[in-house]
Amino acid sequence: MKMRPIHTSIVNSLVASTPFVGPEALERRTGRPIELRLGANESPFGASPLAIAAMRDQALVTHNYGDPEAHELRQALSLQLGVPMASIVLGAGIDELLGLSCRIFLEPNDAVVTTFGSYPTFDYGASACGPVFHRVPYANQAPDLPALLDAVKGTRAKVVYLANPDNPSGAWWTPDEIDEFRQALPYGCVLLLDEAYYEYAAGYLPLDADDPQVIRFRTFSKAHGMAGMRIAYVVAHKDHTDALNKIRYHFGVNSIAQAGALASLSDPAHIAQVVAQTDLGRIELREFMVSMGLKPLPSHTNFLTVDVGSKSRAESILEALLQQGVFIRKPGLPPLDSCIRITIGRPEQRARFAQILTDVLRTL
Amino acid sequence: MKMRPIHTSIVNSLVASTPFVGPEALERRTGRPIELRLGANESPFGASPLAIAAMRDQALVTHNYGDPEAHELRQALSLQLGVPMASIVLGAGIDELLGLSCRIFLEPNDAVVTTFGSYPTFDYGASACGPVFHRVPYANQAPDLPALLDAVKGTRAKVVYLANPDNPSGAWWTPDEIDEFRQALPYGCVLLLDEAYYEYAAGYLPLDADDPQVIRFRTFSKAHGMAGMRIAYVVAHKDHTDALNKIRYHFGVNSIAQAGALASLSDPAHIAQVVAQTDLGRIELREFMVSMGLKPLPSHTNFLTVDVGSKSRAESILEALLQQGVFIRKPGLPPLDSCIRITIGRPEQRARFAQILTDVLRTL
Repeated sequence: MKMRPIHTSIVNSLVASTPFVGPEALERRTGRPIELRLGANESPFGASPLAIAAMRDQALVTHNYGDPEAHELRQALSLQLGVPMASIVLGAGIDELLGLSCRIFLEPNDAVVTTFGSYPTFDYGASACGPVFHRVPYANQAPDLPALLDAVKGTRAKVVYLANPDNPSGAWWTPDEIDEFRQALPYGCVLLLDEAYYEYAAGYLPLDADDPQVIRFRTFSKAHGMAGMRIAYVVAHKDHTDALNKIRYHFGVNSIAQAGALASLSDPAHIAQVVAQTDLGRIELREFMVSMGLKPLPSHTNFLTVDVGSKSRAESILEALLQQGVFIRKPGLPPLDSCIRITIGRPEQRARFAQILTDVLRTL
Repeated sequence: MKMRPIHTSIVNSLVASTPFVGPEALERRTGRPIELRLGANESPFGASPLAIAAMRDQALVTHNYGDPEAHELRQALSLQLGVPMASIVLGAGIDELLGLSCRIFLEPNDAVVTTFGSYPTFDYGASACGPVFHRVPYANQAPDLPALLDAVKGTRAKVVYLANPDNPSGAWWTPDEIDEFRQALPYGCVLLLDEAYYEYAAGYLPLDADDPQVIRFRTFSKAHGMAGMRIAYVVAHKDHTDALNKIRYHFGVNSIAQAGALASLSDPAHIAQVVAQTDLGRIELREFMVSMGLKPLPSHTNFLTVDVGSKSRAESILEALLQQGVFIRKPGLPPLDSCIRITIGRPEQRARFAQILTDVLRTL
């Protein structure tokens, strides 16, 4: 028998999976267009008009590669964040940067600690390194910091993942709480601190590019309204940014995204307004959910996770909403699998959603 | 002494390197703007007007993620190429897809065969897998297919890399020659066939998605004029696309690139015109180079590689051109290190380039 080219043992051990099904695939499945797109925590308030204008201009010269060093953008970030340019690495979304970060630390069979049911794309990217996962259950519907710490110590983990605020729960810790967690980490462990939603939270641990035990992940996908553009960055100790620069694709961040991100940084008023509108919308959505007899979790993000009582009820609501052209998502794993997760929409989207959900709950 | 989080042995073994320095970095170094950007084989004829219009439209909705399955685009490619959708995987440029392809095949210390001095980003991506490289020198200023084959057999290589047409030489093989090479490969070896420049060549091996020993790499960066957008694809056996789908970032190809690529596929007349103009320009540039006493290599691409006699002379010309605001590149390794490489420009760019090069050669 002929031998074919064979894949690596790690790739062979991976089960085919996709962390998220896109709304376009749902449209193809149902044959019905999505009317309300509230499932992926995209910003319904859009990108800054300055960013949109910059991106439309850049679209005229797509034939040129973008700057592989993203010099102007890193310079602007450096000034705004107060960290050296050398401690910033751009990537095509936090997903790519999480994957690269795993690849600089994880040998096969190294231990990784994360929360059971947290952002699945972290697990997805890490699994390509062939580590041993230790997944700590949620406690009180939020990641369990003491238990995560115990797991790190008990397994001599090289990497621990935490999102602050957390997705899909929406939970958030104060800077002091995060600092306490970080200070308790053993020296050999690095914290991958995913701050995709940090603009929506009430505060965050000050950046410290001299700390070799924390890598911070930030994105233009959420409050900046540029999810489709694939642009994010890490702030990390230079030892780690040097390592990331050894394996990242230097031309990987597209030129339009770079132009848009640079313009968006120059428009903090837009971000402030997005956050303010989101705060307003979250309060409104929370009150509506309570009025429907449902139990929203605390949220410091642009989404609200709501306990509807049981996994099967959550699944029924999800499917019934989809049949009405509403795209939301739900956490897949216990204890949050009795919840649905809704992105905070614009006022008219929230009104329409409330109307449709009311109808759905009446018929279920 | 405190132990810091340590990097993997592979990452520690890598020397910090970037396959290419961008023209923006050269501008920052010289303090002078680049007037003629002819170093990165970007298409100076630009993207299709249809693609530009589609990208500008898509820039209005950057807050939404792109379709992770790139369904419409893969459907259009499938129809145009006559291969199943399942045999197509999109990525953020050939660079990313080469890296992913190495990662599905290469265990540490596996043998890889490539041409000494070929496209450096292949080596860059492969090196992150920790393989043993066997680099076969050019013969007659082109990759040496028989010697590559001998190296594959002698080292039991898992992966062999070949670009057709080749970069930086510009050399090209007929479909029959490539087929002969492929048929002679041992069963356990996969050919990564980089066809970034295939639109400019006189023909190519027919696509065969049933062949488990060849992965084809195509891009929108060259003839389609979308280098800045980061979008490319592979055509491969479903075993391999399944494996790639286990480790690729599903949301990694940005939404504007998807919209632009789809529109560009609907405008074959633009590509035909780009290729025709490039052919014309290459003939003109070749004649000019000969008239200057220089030796252009055969080229089936959108660039011309020209032997100027010695490495030091090539370097002097490169630097003198840069001081005049002209960005070109040169192959770094022998025997092509006595060459300079120039992207075929638009008529007015070619005229300006000829004028500046004439001056430079006079003063050197």
